[in-house]
Amino acid sequence: MINCRMMVPGSENRRRIWIYLCSPVERMNPFDTVDHADHSGFGNTGPLRERRAYDPIVQAMSGLMAVTGFAGQPPVRTGAAIADTATPMIAVIGILSALMRRQSTGRGDWVDVSMLDALSFLMPEVIEYYQGGAIDPPLANRHPGGAPFNCFHATDGYVYVATVTDIDWNNLLRAMDREDLIDDPRYAHLPDRHDHVDEVEAVVENWIKGRPRDGVVDVLQSHQVACGPVLSMDEALASEQLRARDMLIPLETPEGKAVPGIMGLGIPIRFADDPVQFDVPAPQLGQHNHDVYGALLGVDDAEIARLKDAGVI
Amino acid sequence: MINCRMMVPGSENRRRIWIYLCSPVERMNPFDTVDHADHSGFGNTGPLRERRAYDPIVQAMSGLMAVTGFAGQPPVRTGAAIADTATPMIAVIGILSALMRRQSTGRGDWVDVSMLDALSFLMPEVIEYYQGGAIDPPLANRHPGGAPFNCFHATDGYVYVATVTDIDWNNLLRAMDREDLIDDPRYAHLPDRHDHVDEVEAVVENWIKGRPRDGVVDVLQSHQVACGPVLSMDEALASEQLRARDMLIPLETPEGKAVPGIMGLGIPIRFADDPVQFDVPAPQLGQHNHDVYGALLGVDDAEIARLKDAGVI
Repeated sequence: MINCRMMVPGSENRRRIWIYLCSPVERMNPFDTVDHADHSGFGNTGPLRERRAYDPIVQAMSGLMAVTGFAGQPPVRTGAAIADTATPMIAVIGILSALMRRQSTGRGDWVDVSMLDALSFLMPEVIEYYQGGAIDPPLANRHPGGAPFNCFHATDGYVYVATVTDIDWNNLLRAMDREDLIDDPRYAHLPDRHDHVDEVEAVVENWIKGRPRDGVVDVLQSHQVACGPVLSMDEALASEQLRARDMLIPLETPEGKAVPGIMGLGIPIRFADDPVQFDVPAPQLGQHNHDVYGALLGVDDAEIARLKDAGVI
Repeated sequence: MINCRMMVPGSENRRRIWIYLCSPVERMNPFDTVDHADHSGFGNTGPLRERRAYDPIVQAMSGLMAVTGFAGQPPVRTGAAIADTATPMIAVIGILSALMRRQSTGRGDWVDVSMLDALSFLMPEVIEYYQGGAIDPPLANRHPGGAPFNCFHATDGYVYVATVTDIDWNNLLRAMDREDLIDDPRYAHLPDRHDHVDEVEAVVENWIKGRPRDGVVDVLQSHQVACGPVLSMDEALASEQLRARDMLIPLETPEGKAVPGIMGLGIPIRFADDPVQFDVPAPQLGQHNHDVYGALLGVDDAEIARLKDAGVI
């Protein structure tokens, strides 16, 4: 059994319903039969452990907002709640590790994961380059690990082009019919291209600006240059690639009825031998009350009915 | 044994060194003794499987850039390489799942994870709100799940304030000594506050604009309002919270010497019973060649010496 909690540490003491529901689990010897996983904004320890957080609070305090956006503009959050969604991934790693340990030793564990720790852990390259003096935030669309490495304006949209190695740069020059620059010592190696970043970006910008977005991508990718279109949400949701990989799947109501035109996300892990997929739609509110409170926690039918009548569950 | 590859599908056929080094592993029955994990930009299947990607290409094609930033500005990437760093987390979940299956069944698996799948998987709330017509990208610092929910200018910096529930809103009003608005029907419930978002934001903006950043945070947090300062990278790296949780640890050279003043990231999972930590510094290039090619893959000393002389390893 895995007992997951997502709340500010200590708040269970102020929420009697939680204690009530949890106590049958907590009375078990937790390390023998239960793995616990706590998720919170700042974790179970440290001076900020009782602070409240939603996703952007952690984006702000991790430094992520400091490195995102354009110089001279106000700070801006990443448009998806990545601290909210990445933290449970880290917790799942902790839970699976604890389960494996239990398979080997018979003893489980108690996992404590915070959104601030998790989001910081996703920023190693920023922290390294910053401490090395290689970046002066915000970064906009450049990156200290490559040049040219930016977002360029095509006739009908934007193309992101990212070159890192000298091979990348030479491939890009061939794609643009600019072999004349391959042996140019001003741009030969990455430090040279960083020293002349405006010049190498101008070469790319001038080539792209009169061309359509998708045509640019086709030419560059055919020369093994990492690039891609900046897609609108409509385009992203129409992705043939995501559909081919079962990452956009028709959504169903809890009763199993299709919701026309609305897609949900699939599972981002493909197993060759034992593939996984969603087998039931999302449950209705309270659909599994009897399974959880009754079969799992041992609350009897009369008490479940009383809790339901009282509006507790 | 876990065999991890990070390359465009098919490129191993163009890289004989890879085949050479891999073949002792691949000759084993992979599902009996080895778990494989492939990481790539777009995965082993689908029409884009052979395309090249670095992190921002996937940010562009997932729609993340479309929802990030301010209206009327060019698209902008998230300042950290989150597709690069989140994808291996998803892969680790796949690897641990395959290892657990092998502990139970004796049979491992082959895991295929793509950066595009992984980053899309971190955007469920964006995809839901967008399909529901609740957002018109880019989102800047607002969010359809709350109001007021934005980044506000204090005298000496920015504070992010995020309210979602009616309780959050009432707590915020008490913190600002604006109890007079608690029963105001214009702002009573979240849909009301969305309808009057400029008004509720103005209430917060006016209260914050004459106050210092950290003082605002202290007052609001003492009223259980989720908020936080927008920290610079220097401030984020000085975080007492991250230090208390061993998330910022002194970096060592491969020889075990301290690198004064430079911090590396710790492990974002705290186990209560069996804590984990880094026990050795990062290896020097080739430090483990004998362990990997010799002990693990069975290449003899003479051949290892020959490969080294030839510059292959």
